[in-house]
Amino acid sequence: MTPDDFRRHGHEMVDWIADFLDGVGSERVFPDVSPGDVRSQLPEHPPTEPESFDAVMADLEHIIVPGLTQWQHPGFFAWFPSNTSYPSILGELMAAGLGINAMAWATSPAATELETLMVDWMHELLGLPARFHSQSEHGGGVIQGSASEATLVAMLAARWKVTNGDVNADGDTTRLVGYATSQAHSSIEKGFRIAGIGTDHLRVVEHDDSFAMRPESLRELIAADRAAGLTPFFVCATNGTTSSMAFDPIEQIADVCERDEVWLHVDAAMSGIAALEPEYRWVNDGLDRVDSYSTNPHKWMGINFDCNLFWTADRASLIGALSILPPYLQSAAAEAGAAIDYRDWQVPLGRRFRALKLWFALRTDGVEPTKQMIRRQVGWTQQLAALVGADDRFDIVAPHPLNLLCIARRGATIDESNALTDALIDAANATGTVLFTRTVLDGRSTLRVSIGASATTFDDVADAWQLLSELANSASSTPD
Amino acid sequence: MTPDDFRRHGHEMVDWIADFLDGVGSERVFPDVSPGDVRSQLPEHPPTEPESFDAVMADLEHIIVPGLTQWQHPGFFAWFPSNTSYPSILGELMAAGLGINAMAWATSPAATELETLMVDWMHELLGLPARFHSQSEHGGGVIQGSASEATLVAMLAARWKVTNGDVNADGDTTRLVGYATSQAHSSIEKGFRIAGIGTDHLRVVEHDDSFAMRPESLRELIAADRAAGLTPFFVCATNGTTSSMAFDPIEQIADVCERDEVWLHVDAAMSGIAALEPEYRWVNDGLDRVDSYSTNPHKWMGINFDCNLFWTADRASLIGALSILPPYLQSAAAEAGAAIDYRDWQVPLGRRFRALKLWFALRTDGVEPTKQMIRRQVGWTQQLAALVGADDRFDIVAPHPLNLLCIARRGATIDESNALTDALIDAANATGTVLFTRTVLDGRSTLRVSIGASATTFDDVADAWQLLSELANSASSTPD
Ligand SMILES: Cc1ncc(COP(=O)(O)O)c(C=O)c1O
Ligand SMILES: Cc1ncc(COP(=O)(O)O)c(C=O)c1O
Repeated sequence: MTPDDFRRHGHEMVDWIADFLDGVGSERVFPDVSPGDVRSQLPEHPPTEPESFDAVMADLEHIIVPGLTQWQHPGFFAWFPSNTSYPSILGELMAAGLGINAMAWATSPAATELETLMVDWMHELLGLPARFHSQSEHGGGVIQGSASEATLVAMLAARWKVTNGDVNADGDTTRLVGYATSQAHSSIEKGFRIAGIGTDHLRVVEHDDSFAMRPESLRELIAADRAAGLTPFFVCATNGTTSSMAFDPIEQIADVCERDEVWLHVDAAMSGIAALEPEYRWVNDGLDRVDSYSTNPHKWMGINFDCNLFWTADRASLIGALSILPPYLQSAAAEAGAAIDYRDWQVPLGRRFRALKLWFALRTDGVEPTKQMIRRQVGWTQQLAALVGADDRFDIVAPHPLNLLCIARRGATIDESNALTDALIDAANATGTVLFTRTVLDGRSTLRVSIGASATTFDDVADAWQLLSELANSASSTPD
Repeated sequence: MTPDDFRRHGHEMVDWIADFLDGVGSERVFPDVSPGDVRSQLPEHPPTEPESFDAVMADLEHIIVPGLTQWQHPGFFAWFPSNTSYPSILGELMAAGLGINAMAWATSPAATELETLMVDWMHELLGLPARFHSQSEHGGGVIQGSASEATLVAMLAARWKVTNGDVNADGDTTRLVGYATSQAHSSIEKGFRIAGIGTDHLRVVEHDDSFAMRPESLRELIAADRAAGLTPFFVCATNGTTSSMAFDPIEQIADVCERDEVWLHVDAAMSGIAALEPEYRWVNDGLDRVDSYSTNPHKWMGINFDCNLFWTADRASLIGALSILPPYLQSAAAEAGAAIDYRDWQVPLGRRFRALKLWFALRTDGVEPTKQMIRRQVGWTQQLAALVGADDRFDIVAPHPLNLLCIARRGATIDESNALTDALIDAANATGTVLFTRTVLDGRSTLRVSIGASATTFDDVADAWQLLSELANSASSTPD
């Protein structure tokens, strides 16, 4: 591709994306494909001669796009939002164009420094405690690829600290135990596997009726483990659990962790972004007493995946766990301690210039549109809750302080209820106009209505409810 | 940013990138900045009102770009190449625009299926053994973010296998030992830390004069560990070490690993891409006997970071180590085993649609330009080696089968030699026209000439040599 071709096709692609995002509502949300359908339409072997750009774009339009699950669709109520936004798309484009590697200060000073500034800007916009600021004595922040990685590195820092760094060499984790509820994200369990601690060493703390952690249960488990000669080292609390958006009571958990000197990480992957709006800043309660914290601009905020923010109040433990300095990575700046090498704050070595996405978005759009969207979507969720609550065919099965509503069909038995709910989810999704995902809350099959796509309007929510209501009528007598 | 603004600014940015890549040779390769210089030019606080796109672009041009290390510069001979290419930039742009999450088949079927097809296309183009193909009985490939992650997941799969999966629960790694040379990449050591195995359990296998692993040493170490009741579980061999591009003898290492049933991973992050060119396909020798393999299109091949390819001949062990299926991630397709959920092949959960970069590049440019570039750059490296070899002020300190030449100044003592070499690197880099990185090879300070940037021409190599030669004259009598 010549530079001129790049200009031409680049312009075409920018326009294509604008058209796509404008029209994505007319696609199916969940594609009508079975495994293998997409691949079977594409050549098994790479071309031997260059093809035209137009040929690729044609296949993209006719084969790839119809095979995608459309996360930008206004009827997307599944999983969690993964919003993209125009300035953030441009930030990603710029990162690809500049083609630098931000693994260390020396490998691109401006990339590192802009990243530090962006996590500090976000720190300010979210109203986070001073201990996480990059210019605080012991803390700092970094952009990670995912909340899963953030949780993992938090665990590694905690482990390094509790073993005085010995674990780097001896790998001895036999006495370590960690804690989370059954509602914590699967990445905690995955982290315990990856870190070689093992899920036998991960205690399931009880949750209450609202699916939030019971601090009393945590206290008891820790005491029992200490009594058994084990070393409690890590608690993962969640601000906004994946299944039902429950908020673990951070203050009370911090009471336990502080007394027992256990590292407290708070995973606020989805919900932490709500703190942009002062009205919802209660999501930060207690964060001034936690050791690490993480939230995802790549979910609700419109910074396209991947962009996770991770802060710690103890960067020395993080770097202790992850820093290795072979001669081919040494630099005068790093040795003098004057510069940050973010490779030592994360699992991978190489790094994209992800700060650009935040920079373009925060400067051109700012956070006001996101704050308004968050207020609107939380409001619609409450309106929807009123409708569902007034309908005796449905139960609301969890608190809904923000933008997720968990509902279930009523049934004579739990099995009937579950069958009705499952059938409803399948029937709704089959229309292609909406997408809901299912979860299970204390044995109850649950339809999650996650109202977070930036394209969603109140009409889309109202339509979705009408659809569910109609389908509930037709399916109510014959669950299978 | 309105859709119309996006179109307009998107066009501008595409043109800006074309201009930037065209003119990057006139920037300094390594910027003239000290830690903090870039940040100090930017506002400490986020703007309270939206700013114009032009204002951001102006700061990008005047503050960010002059503070970057220019990896696309023709005089970039540092670390390893991180080439970008026009179609791959467009693939990244498209991924950001579509805004889907490729974590599972159900979260975007076409993204998963295109990814599987792309790793199979690359499998074919690189001439890899059948056991890695996604349609083989036990193998398959995936795009990871980095070689570091590939090595880590290889380690996790190996550990899962040797413990029959018990490690997921008990985390017991006390008897496990792994093996690599001192020349292996720091990500191996980092992986041993992250995985909680500990670097005491990582044996340093001897290397020979060419910095390649001595299979005899590996055999002895494994035998000794077995005799001591330990469990050898993982060998990481390198095809093209970071410091000097040494090739561990895979066939002979496989002899040892097969007999001892130890998982053999081959890290070919930089050099594996050479196999695109049949002349250099010897880099694949022995891969039909290894358990996992990984190479980086984001280095030499021009697929912008991040794009690592990871293959295994034993996907069951990989998935065994990493798969967790909470209710909110279940899907009918995955349960039926008909679809691949790549989140179970990697550390993070969420995933970008990285296959698009490969797809756009392989279809529009194909690999012929890359093959030609590789041939040219290997040729220039050999020409440069002839020049350096004929100059009695220099030693060539390692074999140079491909595109990396390791050189050192001669000196009366090793200390003098090292001082001269270090001074030469600093003096050359200070000109801003070239960038070399330093390594240490068996105690000898070494200037690495990595000829891999796609913008580099023979003239750039010749100019670089002339510069080194002149600087060596002026610095020869007064090392400090
Ligand atoms: C609470 C919580 N934590 C972690 C994650 C994982 O997010 P990521 O894909 O960024 O790892 C999610 C999203 O599913 C989540 O809801
Ligand atoms: C041999 C080798 N392995 C691994 C890596 C790490 O690459 P990545 O940044 O993709 O993790 C490199 C690059 O530095 C390398 O040269």
